[in-house]
This record gives sequence, structure tokens and C-alpha cells, in this order.
Amino acid sequence: MHSIHPLFWCVPVGSVVALAFAWYFFRQMMAEDEGTETMRKIAAHVRAGAYAYLRQQYKVVGIVFIVITLVFMFLAYGLKLQNPWVPFAFLTGGFFSGLAGFFGMKTATYASARAANAAKDSLDHGLRVAFRSGAVMGLVVVGLGLLDISIWFLVLSHFYPIGEAEGHNLIIITTTMLTFGMGASLQALFARVGGGIFTKAADVGADLVGKVEAGIPEDDPRNPATIADNVGDNVGDVAGMGADLYESYCGSILATASLGAAAFLGAGTDVQMKAVIAPMLIGAFGTLLSILGIFSVRVQKGADSKALLGALGKGINVSSALIIVFSALVLYFLKIPNWYGIWGAIVVGLITGIVIGRATEYYTSQAYRPTQRIAEQAKTGPATVIIAGMGEGMLSVAYPVLAVCVGTTLAYLLATGFTFDSDTMSQGLYGIGIAAVGMLSTLGITLATDAYGPIADNAGGNAEMSGLDPEVRRRTDMLDSLGNTTAATGKGFAIGSAALTALALLASYIEELKIGINRVMAQLGEFTFPDKTVVHSANEVTNLSLFDMMNVFEVNLMNPKVIIGLFLGCMMAFLFCGLTMNAVGRAASQMVDEVRRQFKEIPGILESKAEPDYARCVTISTFAAQKEMLFPALTAVIVPVLVGIVFGVPGVLGLLGGALAGGFALAVFMANSGGAWDNAKKYIEEGHHGGKGSEAHKASVIGDTVGDPFKDTSGPSLNILIKLMSMVSIVVAGVTVSFSLL
Amino acid sequence: MHSIHPLFWCVPVGSVVALAFAWYFFRQMMAEDEGTETMRKIAAHVRAGAYAYLRQQYKVVGIVFIVITLVFMFLAYGLKLQNPWVPFAFLTGGFFSGLAGFFGMKTATYASARAANAAKDSLDHGLRVAFRSGAVMGLVVVGLGLLDISIWFLVLSHFYPIGEAEGHNLIIITTTMLTFGMGASLQALFARVGGGIFTKAADVGADLVGKVEAGIPEDDPRNPATIADNVGDNVGDVAGMGADLYESYCGSILATASLGAAAFLGAGTDVQMKAVIAPMLIGAFGTLLSILGIFSVRVQKGADSKALLGALGKGINVSSALIIVFSALVLYFLKIPNWYGIWGAIVVGLITGIVIGRATEYYTSQAYRPTQRIAEQAKTGPATVIIAGMGEGMLSVAYPVLAVCVGTTLAYLLATGFTFDSDTMSQGLYGIGIAAVGMLSTLGITLATDAYGPIADNAGGNAEMSGLDPEVRRRTDMLDSLGNTTAATGKGFAIGSAALTALALLASYIEELKIGINRVMAQLGEFTFPDKTVVHSANEVTNLSLFDMMNVFEVNLMNPKVIIGLFLGCMMAFLFCGLTMNAVGRAASQMVDEVRRQFKEIPGILESKAEPDYARCVTISTFAAQKEMLFPALTAVIVPVLVGIVFGVPGVLGLLGGALAGGFALAVFMANSGGAWDNAKKYIEEGHHGGKGSEAHKASVIGDTVGDPFKDTSGPSLNILIKLMSMVSIVVAGVTVSFSLL
Repeated sequence: MHSIHPLFWCVPVGSVVALAFAWYFFRQMMAEDEGTETMRKIAAHVRAGAYAYLRQQYKVVGIVFIVITLVFMFLAYGLKLQNPWVPFAFLTGGFFSGLAGFFGMKTATYASARAANAAKDSLDHGLRVAFRSGAVMGLVVVGLGLLDISIWFLVLSHFYPIGEAEGHNLIIITTTMLTFGMGASLQALFARVGGGIFTKAADVGADLVGKVEAGIPEDDPRNPATIADNVGDNVGDVAGMGADLYESYCGSILATASLGAAAFLGAGTDVQMKAVIAPMLIGAFGTLLSILGIFSVRVQKGADSKALLGALGKGINVSSALIIVFSALVLYFLKIPNWYGIWGAIVVGLITGIVIGRATEYYTSQAYRPTQRIAEQAKTGPATVIIAGMGEGMLSVAYPVLAVCVGTTLAYLLATGFTFDSDTMSQGLYGIGIAAVGMLSTLGITLATDAYGPIADNAGGNAEMSGLDPEVRRRTDMLDSLGNTTAATGKGFAIGSAALTALALLASYIEELKIGINRVMAQLGEFTFPDKTVVHSANEVTNLSLFDMMNVFEVNLMNPKVIIGLFLGCMMAFLFCGLTMNAVGRAASQMVDEVRRQFKEIPGILESKAEPDYARCVTISTFAAQKEMLFPALTAVIVPVLVGIVFGVPGVLGLLGGALAGGFALAVFMANSGGAWDNAKKYIEEGHHGGKGSEAHKASVIGDTVGDPFKDTSGPSLNILIKLMSMVSIVVAGVTVSFSLL
Repeated sequence: MHSIHPLFWCVPVGSVVALAFAWYFFRQMMAEDEGTETMRKIAAHVRAGAYAYLRQQYKVVGIVFIVITLVFMFLAYGLKLQNPWVPFAFLTGGFFSGLAGFFGMKTATYASARAANAAKDSLDHGLRVAFRSGAVMGLVVVGLGLLDISIWFLVLSHFYPIGEAEGHNLIIITTTMLTFGMGASLQALFARVGGGIFTKAADVGADLVGKVEAGIPEDDPRNPATIADNVGDNVGDVAGMGADLYESYCGSILATASLGAAAFLGAGTDVQMKAVIAPMLIGAFGTLLSILGIFSVRVQKGADSKALLGALGKGINVSSALIIVFSALVLYFLKIPNWYGIWGAIVVGLITGIVIGRATEYYTSQAYRPTQRIAEQAKTGPATVIIAGMGEGMLSVAYPVLAVCVGTTLAYLLATGFTFDSDTMSQGLYGIGIAAVGMLSTLGITLATDAYGPIADNAGGNAEMSGLDPEVRRRTDMLDSLGNTTAATGKGFAIGSAALTALALLASYIEELKIGINRVMAQLGEFTFPDKTVVHSANEVTNLSLFDMMNVFEVNLMNPKVIIGLFLGCMMAFLFCGLTMNAVGRAASQMVDEVRRQFKEIPGILESKAEPDYARCVTISTFAAQKEMLFPALTAVIVPVLVGIVFGVPGVLGLLGGALAGGFALAVFMANSGGAWDNAKKYIEEGHHGGKGSEAHKASVIGDTVGDPFKDTSGPSLNILIKLMSMVSIVVAGVTVSFSLL
């Protein structure tokens, strides 16, 4: 392992620093006062519910992971079709992803009452507590991500030493590490889907009976589903998002590293090594700069909401500007060939993320026409609100898609030196991958601004239930709505990076195929491709460019297998959303029935004379989520395997391409429709079209309820679905290759 | 032109017979009594509105057609980049498609009062009048389609004689004829989008103010939008559908003919000719058998609704069974190589259509669980109805996609003799094309059962407005609901054939590229492909297989241009739906305002003392539709051209693939969600969950209203969008090739 580049050590250092600061911010938050007895009690209720949910969730997920690990062990040790490290890498990915979610949730459940209590003091004190708690989550996610990457890189480079002549080992190391990406993806999918179903079942149920039927306000302690609703924010928006972004972060770095190993194979191990560690270094420096950015979020005592938003924006801008400078320095000192082109790709990635974020904001914020148009349609009732929200959401797909297309093209061309030549293809794809890394490099702080939203939301819930002064609630609402604006940018980065990462993963799949072919060739002496080309040596396989591989596997758009794959890929996106939407619908129905039952059977709830049975609602959401999350998640694992067996490599690549293009459009549509309905309601509540209590308001509440599963369950899960299907295909590529010989 | 195969003459004969029977049925319908003075007056109102709309529509579309024709003339005669027949073929396609819509609408507007009057007599008399009028439309569509095909085939084979050695001329003839497919597609898109916006604006507007606010029943003469609503059924569901299916019918036959010319190029002109006329013959015989089927729809006097449904089903089954037998005979006598395989593909096509139809029925009929589940969710209000409808609609994508995948694979394998070898690829694609032709072969009768629905609907409107006995309305409602069931099958055939035809068109695009390359080569002496391959002679180009063409143009899934194309294709589907949804929303809002204004400003409307201003509502819908249809339709024309210029052949094929896979899924989702909401409402109206007037019913009415633009505007337009984009790409392929040299 003599030849690991010395700069690599920045990565574990970055990881440790991130985790240390996470710990520091956590202690700082814990040192705050948790407020009155009632506040503590409510926070304890929510915490207990969240823990109970997570325990149940990890139990179910644990079983799935054990089964899949056993299958991988059989494939690796029994049939010798797979790399022996796969089962372990897979497990750690899942474990760390779950851990990131757990720490985030733990912090959030301790922070909510403290943030509410701080908001009693002042708006800026509230922001500080909530934002620093969000920062814990941001730093835990990137810290654990870099830790997992560092450990595996060191371990594997011990077993596959990287000498001058062993460029292949770097390919094996990086593609093996992708397996832990699959573990992280699967965990993330469970967390997002399960958490999403939990939170929206509780939310929809609480709103429909509480707000609409009983006419009591949001977060009212008389509503039996209100604790479940607050638990939901923690398990869905915090734990789910943590696992999700852990996966995005690691996925983009690992995919790029693996592409780097492949793209620079011919240039010598030294250059290859640099290309592999470059994305990790960008991540490490981005983390350090994020910490700087977090500290730069300071507000004067008594600052107003505009100043707060300015402070948050400043934090992100400082980190982003610095990462542009630092990544140039890192690449320059690494002396990667064409470093300025690769640096350009990173900048393009950052800008693409910002553009998508701005587009998201335009289509979902009440400050702009689309959301206002939806609010206007509320005057003619719920039907027109829904139609308008769907229409605007579908239109909103255009800008993000165009941004991804332009960003991809530029990143590709910058990395190849402005040519579409087939020989520089791998470098171009490396450029696309590193653009995704650039987009996510400052995740430490963008995630902090994202995660602080649900914390503020929960603080508001706590304030309401504890009967604090309405001014406190007003302040937490303001914090929450600030969070919505910064979250739009965060969502842009999440979905944009998913698209670019998935693109890069397509190329990693091809590299993994080559490894599978070599394994087969080692046993049979030769390998025949579908187009009848025969290879006899590992060298011949290595020399096949990505385009050559496409030709020999006949992965072109006239091949019906590719077209069938495209159809199935788009279908998967819709099927997945249909399953999760229906799951929310069913679970919400159960919740509605339960809340109605409690109102009827427990006398005195509405007069605050009796306490509702909160725990029962939490249990309903928990079990509904567990039951409903299994089928969609397992479908995502099984379909790529089946398609690989039946339609081979062309089918798999079609499937992934279809899921990527179709899933991206569907995800943007659902997220933006949902967000716009939410804010159209808020716009009306601000006093437009009759304000609160008007017919238009009632119509907009219906729009908001429809939007809940759109934006918090189905939409965000699609990001992960796209990547999980790619990861699964990569991990079972060797099996697909063997089947193609039957 | 000595070598046109004698069996070809069956095609013009089929056309003339179809048109003759259409005329016969039309006269038969006109001979019926139109009923009372009021009934005649109302029918005249609706007729006048429909004519006014169509006049306006054809004016706008005429201008667009003239502009595009001028562009084509410049390309063909000025720049010599295109076949000189293109401008004329394009014009006739548009003209005949419009004519099919016009005749259908004319018949429908004359038939509605007559059908209502016949229903006074008995249910079966009503059915006879409505169904025979629907048959006029079915036969006009196929008759005009076969006529256009016959004329152009004869004209072009005069100018490009088909001797022993001139196999290329058949390719030129068939691909030129595809241009008239583009004219038909464009006309169809305008008809569907414009008609769809008109009808749903009127429908939503009439429902929201009339039914919900004023509490008057559907089709009440006091509602100012009620005439517009009935006009809408004629211009959207009749004229729009007529133009749409004219395009599907011709598109599938022409795409298959063009593939046949290419696939059997090596086998000699004789075989090639047979492959070209085979799809035409299937169409011609299908038409004759449809007429037989139409006559077999006979019911006993006093038959109940089950007997009527049985009769309709029998008609379709008779035609389908006979076409299976006759197509075997036709292919056998033609002596096409592997005739039984091609026959197998036809059978697969028919079965695929039936499977998709059944799946559609399962997901949208109140007889099955999905729609019942949606109705159940109405108990908890409109939000859960909408969520459930979206969820079920998204799930419903799975079966049709799987049916298309299995159908495609089987048709392909049957036509190649069970191999995926790249040399037999063209034959396989021919198999897919002819499967689409098989699916649509009995369009004469399936369209009759489809078109009779809106006629029955209008008859009901007429009965209501004329104050006929409620029993008459009950009978027309029963006819209408029978129509819904058969229409599900019709929709399955429409969308399934669109998918298969679009697939076949991808291959036609490649053939057209070859012609473009030859044209360039004739001027420059050589042609260099993107992968640096150079060709010097037409022969070299001809010898390139479809897979070779993919390789030299680098159309594989690792090419970022292909991926960008995929993204843009999916985006187009969403963008298009967003535009049309918003258009309906905006137009409906105008209608709501107008109806409210009339109720307020014209005293005595609600007491039936004053007549509302029906014409004003018709005018609003007309101008809204005209204004709103232009942008989406022109986007569909311009985007493929732009993508071709910027990203070349890989970009275009990616675009078409993405639009096909993404658009198909989106179309199925929207059509089925809309249909299911409609029937969930009907299910509740039948007395479930509280029946009419209950809260659940109100919630389901909102679902139905949201579903209106889903199922009647955006969803069905997507079918055409997919094919129009392919047609445009084919027509401008020569231009793309020239640009690729810049």
C-alpha cells in the first residue's frame, strides 16, 4: 500500500473534524434549557415515539439486509461469481446510512423543545439552536460518509496493493466500494419510504379529522394524531433525509472514483490514483469549508426574518465560493491532467445545482406567479386547485431537465477538452461525476439549512401543545418558513446530483461488467459477446472502450431489448409512486378511523378533560409504514436482477436509462406540485382570496393534503430508486454476465 | 408501374366499399325522425356551435399547414434537401385527417336528436341509431385512410417505377408516404388538443357553477354552458377522435410498409412489394370484416342492457376472429417468406390490444376493486379521493407496459424465426409494425363502438334539454355507459398501437437517414459518419444494417447525447401535459366567470323565464381552445428539429425513445386515473357510500372534475405527440444529416 497518495489522508482528517464538530454542536444544543415541565414531557413523548419507530424499522430492515447479505455470500463464496468483499461492504453501507439517520433524529428530538424555549427568548436565539442542531445532522452525514470511504479504501488497498503495474486493482477497489453504496441506497430507500408513509399518514389523518372535521388548529394537543404527526417529521424529514443524503453523498464520490480509475487506466497508476482520490478530497475540503460556513451564520440580537435569511444564505454562499477556490487548488496540486477542465466541471456542477434550486423556488414559492396562479384557482374550488397544481408541476419539469442537459454537456466537454470523440468518453463521464461531487461538496452546510426546517417545525408543535405564548409559535413558524426557502435549494442539489450520479453509475456498470467478463474468462478461457466478437485475454477486454462495449453488447436504440428496458424503467418510476401513494392513502384512512374513534369513544377529549391515546396513533403509523414499505423497496431490488437475467446488458441499460429520465421528470413534477400546493395555501392564509377560513382556503387545504405524499413520500423516494436500481445492477453485473452465456 | 401486385387493388376496393357503406348508414340515420320542434332546435344549436368551432379551428390550422408547406417547399426545391413530394403528401394527410373528423362530427350532430327520439321508442332502437351513426365515423376514417394510401401509392409508383432492379424506389415511395402521416398527425394533434380544451373547459365550467353552485342537474337548459358542453362532446370526442384514429390507422400501415420495403430489400423487388402491400391488405380486409361485424350487431326488440352489451361485444369478436383467419389466407396467398411468423405477429398484436383493453377496464370500471377503492376513499373527502385516484392510475401503468413488452418481444421473435440476431433485426421490427396493424385492422367496428358513446351522451343532453320523459334519459344514460365499457377496449387499442407504431417509426427514421446520406453523397462524393467511417457509394450505405447504422452514428446508451435526448423526451411528455392541463384550467375559469355573470346579470334564468346566452359560452370555449392549442402543438414540431440540429442522430433517437417510454406511461396513468374517478363517482351514484348528494358523492364529483382534463385532453393527446415527434424527425431526417456535416 506504499503508493496511496499522501493527500488522501485529508479525507479521514476531514471525517474526524466533521464528527468532532458534530459532537461539539450536539453538546452545545444539549446545554440549552429544555423549558417547562410540559415541554419536556411532550418532547419525551415525541422522542419515545420516534425511537419506537426506528427500533421497529431497523428490525425489519435488518432482516432484509441479512437475507441479501446471505445471497451475496452465496454468490461470492458458493458460486464464486462475485467479489468476496461485497457482502461486508454492503452491510457497512447500510449500517452507516442508518446511523446517520439515527444521530440526526436523536439530535432533532432533543432539539425541538430547546429550540421552542430559545424562541421564547428571541427569534435569533431560536434560529441558533435549530440551525446548530441541523448542523449536527449535516456534519454527521458527511463525517460518516468520509469515514466509511476512508476505511474501505485503506482496507482494500491493503488487499489489492496499488503498485506501478496494477492499475486494475484500483478499478477493483473502487467498484467494490460501490457495493457499500448499494447498502446505503437500500437503507435510504427504506428510511425514505417508511418515514414518508409514517409522516404523511399521520399528517393527513391529523389534518382531515382534526382541522377539517373537528375544526381544531394544527398541533392541538386534543388531536390524538398530533404526537404521531410530530414523530413523523422526525422519522421522515430528519432520519429519512439523513439516510437519503448519506447515500447521495457517498454515491457521487464513489461513482466518480470508480470512473476515475477506469478513465485514466492508460495513464499510469499515479494519475489514476489522483483521479480516484480527487472526488474524495473535494468532499473533505467541502466539509471543512462547510464548518466555516456554519460558523459564519451569525445574527445580531433581535434580527428580523430577512436578516436571518440573509445569514443562512451567506453561510451557504461563503462555503460555495470557497470550495470553488479550494477545489482549484486541490486539483492543481494533485496535478491531474487537464485539471482546469475538471475544475470547470465542478463549477458547472455547483451552478447546475443552484439553477435547479432557483427553478424549484420559482415554481414553489408564494413569491412567484406559478404558486399564485394555483392560489387564484382556489376561488373556483378544490378541483381547479388540483388541476392547476398538476399543470404547474408538470411544466416545472422543463427547467431542471434543461439545466441537467446543459450541465451534463458542459461538464462532459470541459473534462474532454471540448470534444465528443469516443476515445475521451470516459474522461467526459468522469467530468459528469465530479460535477455531482461539486454539487454536493458543501452538503455539510446545505443539509444543515435543510434539516433545521423540521426541527423548527417540531419546535412549533411543542410550543403549541405546551400552550406557550402565540408569539413563540409565530417565531417558530417564521423559522420554519425560512427553512422552506433554503430547502428549495437543498432539494435542487439533491435531485440534480441524483441525476448526474446515476449517469456516472451507468458507466461504472460497464466497468463492473468487464470485471465479470474477466472472471468468466479466467474459468472458460474465452468470452463471446452477443455480437459474436470473441475475446481471450483480460488485456483485450481492458482495451474495449465504453463505445466498443456498447457495440459488442448491442446496446443501441434499435435493439428491442433496450426499448423494452426503457419502457420498464419508466414503468418502475410510476409503479413505485403508485405503490407509495396508495400506501399513504391506506395508512391515512386507518389514522382517520382511529382519530374519529377516539373522539367518539373517549369522552372529554375535545374539552381537554381527557388525554387522547397518542401512542395508539404512533403504533398505527409505525406498523402501516413497516408493512407498506417492503414491497416497493424489494421491487426496486428484484426488477433490475430479473431484467438482467431475461434481457441481458441491453435490457439493464435501457431499464436504468428509462428509470433515470422518467424518474427524474416524475420526481420533479411531484415534488414541485406538492411544494406549490403547500405554499398556495400559505399564500391564501396570508390574506389573499379571502384568507383563512374562506372557501378558497378550504380548497387550498385539500390541495395541500394531496401534495403531502407527492412531496414527502413518493417524489423524494424516486431519487433513491433511480440510484438503487443502478447500484443493484452494478453489484449483480457479474451474475448477468454469467447468465448471458446460458 | 407494371409490377404492382394485383392483390393491391383490394385496397382501393376496400376503401370505396367502406365509404359506400358509410354513406348508406348516414342516409339510414338521416331517414329517422328528428323528434319534436324543441329537439330539432336544440340539435341545430349544437350543430351550429360545432360548425362554428370547426370553421375557426380549420382556419388556424390551415395557416399553420400553409406555413409548414412553404418551409418544406423551400427545403425540397430551394435547398434540395428533401424529396419533392413531401409538401404535397404533408398537405393531403392533414386534409384527409381533418375531413374524417368533419364527417364524423357532421354525422354525430345530426344523429343526437334522432337517437334521443329513437330511445323514446325503445332501448334497442336508440342503440341502432346511435351505433350505426358511430359506424359512419368508423368507416369514414378507415375508408379515407385506405383511399389516401391507394392514391399516393399509385401516383408515386408511377414516378418511381418498381422494376426488378429498383428496390430502392419502393423505399423512396413508402418513406415519402410517411410524410402524409406527419400531416395527419399534426392535424390530429390540433384536433385532439383544441377539441380537448374546448370540451373540458365547457364541461368543468358547466359542472362547477351549474351542478355545484346553482345545484341544477347536468344538461339543464338553464345552464348557459350546457350547449357548449354538448358542442364539446362533438368537437372533442368525435372530431378529435376521428382525426386521431385516422392518424393511428394510416401511421401504422405506412410505418409497416416502409419497414417492409427496407427489411426485404435484399430478397428482390417481388418479395419487397409483398411486404409493402401486406399491411395495406390487412387493413382492407379488416375493413370489409368490420362492415360484416357492424351488420351482426342486432338486438331483439325490448332487449335489456346486458343483451346490448353482448351484441356489441359479438360484433367486435366476429370481426376479430375473422381477421385472424383472413390475414392468414392473405399472407399465405401473398407467399411472403415466413408468412406464418408474420401472421403470428398479427395475432399477437390483436391479443396485446385486447389485454391492454382488459387492463384498462379493470382499472377504470366500477365493477372492479381499484375504482371501488377510490370510491371508498371518498368517505374521507376529496383529498383522499384524489390521492387514491393518482395512486391507482400510476399502478395501472404496469400491465399495459408489460403487455407491450411481451407483445413486442413475441411479435419480433415470430417475425425473425425466434432469434435476436442483428441481421434479422429489420424483419423483427417489421413484425412489431404489423402487430400494430393487426391491432387496428378492425378499427372500422371498434371505432364505431367508441364513437357511439358521445352520440348517446349528446342524445341524453338533447332529451334532458327538451324535457323528454325521464325514462328516455335513463335509456340514453344506459347506452352511454355501455359505450364506456366498449370504449375501454378502444382506448387499449389506440394506445397500444401508438406504442408499437412509434417503435416501428424509429426504424423508418433510420431508413430515411440513409436516403438523406445518399442525397449528400450524390453532391459531395462521400459521407463521413460521426465514428469516422467513410462511405462512397449508395451500395455501401444500403448494406449497413440497422445495428451498423447505430454503431456508425454512435447511438448507444453511453453517448451523453442519447441520454440528454432521453431526458428531453420524457420532459416533452410532461411539458405537453402541463401546458394542456393549464390551458383547460384557464379556459374553465373563464367559463366559470361567464356562467356566474349570466346568472347574475340575466334575471330569470334559473326560473326558466329567460334564455341564457349559449352562444357566448361556445365562443369563449372556441377562442380559448384556438389560443391555447398553438403553443403545445408547435413545440412538438419544433423540438425534434432543434434536437436534431444540436445533438444529431443520437439526440433525436434518444428524444424519441424517451418520449415513447415516458409518454406511454404518462398517457396510461392520466387516462386511467381520469376514467377511474369518473366511474368512482358513478359507483357512488349507484347508491354506495351514501349515494347521490352525500359528502362522499361531492368528493367524488371533485375527483371526476380533476379527471376530465386527464382523460380527455392531456392523456389522449400524448399518443399523438409521440408519433408526431417521430414523423417530424423522419421528414426532416435529410436536414439533420446535412447539419451533421457542419
